[in-house]
Formats: sequence, C-alpha cells, structure tokens
Amino acid sequence: MSERDPRIIKVKESILEDNDADAEKLRGELRDEKTFYLNVMSSPGSGKTSSILQIISRLRDKYRIGVLEADIDGDVDTRTMLNAGVESVQIHTGGMCHLDADMSRQSLREIGSADLDLVILENVGNLVCPAEFDTGAAADLVILSVPEGDDKPLKYPLMFEKADVVLVNKIDALEAFDFDMDKFTENVRLRNAAAEVFAVSAETGEGFDDAAAWIASAADEFLGGAK
Amino acid sequence: MSERDPRIIKVKESILEDNDADAEKLRGELRDEKTFYLNVMSSPGSGKTSSILQIISRLRDKYRIGVLEADIDGDVDTRTMLNAGVESVQIHTGGMCHLDADMSRQSLREIGSADLDLVILENVGNLVCPAEFDTGAAADLVILSVPEGDDKPLKYPLMFEKADVVLVNKIDALEAFDFDMDKFTENVRLRNAAAEVFAVSAETGEGFDDAAAWIASAADEFLGGAK
Repeated sequence: MSERDPRIIKVKESILEDNDADAEKLRGELRDEKTFYLNVMSSPGSGKTSSILQIISRLRDKYRIGVLEADIDGDVDTRTMLNAGVESVQIHTGGMCHLDADMSRQSLREIGSADLDLVILENVGNLVCPAEFDTGAAADLVILSVPEGDDKPLKYPLMFEKADVVLVNKIDALEAFDFDMDKFTENVRLRNAAAEVFAVSAETGEGFDDAAAWIASAADEFLGGAK
Repeated sequence: MSERDPRIIKVKESILEDNDADAEKLRGELRDEKTFYLNVMSSPGSGKTSSILQIISRLRDKYRIGVLEADIDGDVDTRTMLNAGVESVQIHTGGMCHLDADMSRQSLREIGSADLDLVILENVGNLVCPAEFDTGAAADLVILSVPEGDDKPLKYPLMFEKADVVLVNKIDALEAFDFDMDKFTENVRLRNAAAEVFAVSAETGEGFDDAAAWIASAADEFLGGAK
C-alpha cells in the first residue's frame, strides 16, 4: 500500500474573547451531532500517539474514529495514524502551544466529525498551556510516563486538576526508574478527587483494556445512544 | 542539618513590549557584573534538576553558583538544591509557561547575582513556550531524555534551533527504549548546525565531565576573566 500524504491544516488563532463560552457551545454542537471528542494531553514523548493507537485497536469495531494530530510542525504522528489505517488530519498551530475551542472546530470540520462517533485530539506536547484552554472536548485524558517522575502533579497542578482520566504510561520500564505509583496517585489526589488513574504500557498493551472501557463508557454516556 | 525553608518569589509578567531588546540589555548588565547566566530548558521529567546537580558538582570549586528554580507551583526542586548545599531561589510564574528577561532580572536580583559567577535557571518544564522568550541568558542548554524519543527536534523545532548545547539524558536507559542517537543528532542538525550534543546520564554521571567542561569554557569566554 502506498503511503497516503497527510492532510495538513493550519488553524488560525481564535479572535474570540470568551473561549470558555465557545467551548461550551462546541460541546453542545458535538452532542447534537453525536460525536464524542476526547482531548489527549501530555508532555512531549510520554506516548500519546502509541497510547491512542492502543485505544483505537480496542474501540474501532464499536465506533467510527478519527484523530486530530496537533503539532507546532511536522507530520510524523499523522503518518503513523494513516499507516495504521486510522483517519487522521495534521493540525499546525503556527507556533502556538495549545488548541482552543475555535481551533478545534476548524479541525473537526476538516476531518468531518459529523460522520464520526469518536474524535481523538492529540494536543500539543505540553503539560502547561493546553490545560488552560477548554477545547470543547467531552473528556480530558492526561498521560504521564514513568520516566517523568511521580512528582509532576505538584509542579503542573492545573493539568491534573482538569483531567477526567490519567494514564501512567511506560510501566514496563518501572524497574529502571525511581517512580512510586502510590505517591503519584496521592499527588494526583491533592488536585483531583475524581479522576480515574490507569497504569498502562503502550509498548505491551498492558492496562489498555480497562482504559478503553472507561473511554467507551464515557462516550456512551455523553452520546446517550447510537447515531 | 535542619532543612532550610525555600525562598519563594512570585515574578510578575513583564509589561515591556520588546522582550528581545530587554534581554540584550540584561545580557549586557550580567556581562558587566561578570555573571554567566545559563538557561536550562526541557520537558517535564527530562532530568533538569539532576543534570544541574551533576554540573554543579563539577564546577563548584571553580565558580560561586546559584540556581533559580522556575515552576508554576511547588518547591520540590528548590528543596533538592538546598539539601545539596546549593544556593537556590524558587520562582513562581503565576501560571505562565515561560520566563522572560524582566522576570529573569527580578529573580537574579533576589538571588544576588552580583556575588555569583554562574547562575543556572531551571526554566519551566516545557519544550514550546520557553523557546519563544529570550531570558537574557548567555547560553541556552536543552535537555532531551531517551524515553521522549529521537523525533522531538522535528516536532519542537524552535527549542532545538535556539540551543547552544543539547544534552541527551538517561542514556543508561537506552536499551529499554527505541532511541537512535545518530537519528536524533541528524534531526537536531536539520534545525541547528552549531549546537554541541552530549550524551549523558544524570543517574550515573556519565558524560557530564565533557558537558561541564563545555559550560566552563563558554562561561570563561563570556566573562573574559575573573570577577
């Protein structure tokens, strides 16, 4: 199979003053069209792309899925998705460190969200800025990988405060690093009483059955029935 | 020894329109007072704090050293520095994802840079925003750790474009990850023909003799003689 060329769109910075209101509006639009929009955030290199592939392999029989790949530059991840047979569009943020609701809307239009059940946004790799902008997603998933350290919720509180679900990735490398899972969960709890925490390995697939089941359950609840 | 309480300062966002001009001004001020200001940037969890400790252990006989720890919240790293007997001040950025020149100046005043030869700034963990703001530092050091992947210069080009020196950290974990050092260096070279690249392990100390020697040489060149 010859490699498809990634579709690349350059989103424009929103001129709207009230992103929160626009995000609420977008959430309503997506509820009406029955599309569950999942915002995946993490540092660079925590394993967003490979985690998304693990999730999709468990949900693709159930949902029509698309992936929005947001990056400052490049198209590495979109190529990975297309090679895996996953509908995907590359979003270039023009140097910006985050996506807001209107940038989401431009991207959802481009990928054709009305014909999809689940759209996953791989946000810009960054534990700071993306947490400050509501994308209009129905749920926020945050990934923290073992090599990054169990103290990160203390340093990047807003990201963990906003998370509906947290994946601790690269648990296959636990032995090589000084990472305390209980301490990490405790640090998350300081900021967030409700978020589910799943220990996973995007390398081996461990833990993704549970994580994907959580996402399916949240999607079904949001959509309230089939399209 | 009882633990010292970290000094925490809250820096204010600069109202200056031209941060680049202010950064040049600050660089001149620091040259006059003979202080080498080194800006250390990376993602969260790449090993900034432990790398800085490795560097300091090799340079503390030669220079009077202070460390500025910039974070959104928390004081974990400043406590680590103080426990290691290193002069350190915690900077809270009030949610901001970067430090600019004026925020640097406020922090340098607080730590008393005029009485120090080398001040190391541990910038906010973030591969995007800190690259966009000149801090007034004499040199920019970027750390990328092996678990983050060798493709990161393609996705976060500005950070690698700005680097004077790049450390590839956690090389002790090379076997556990699919990281190609030649490919990484090639990806850096696409953006930056000049930056030195050192492979290091902040865990074992490997590679830090060379990295510290590079910093000492850059500092001596900048300062042009003793204080």
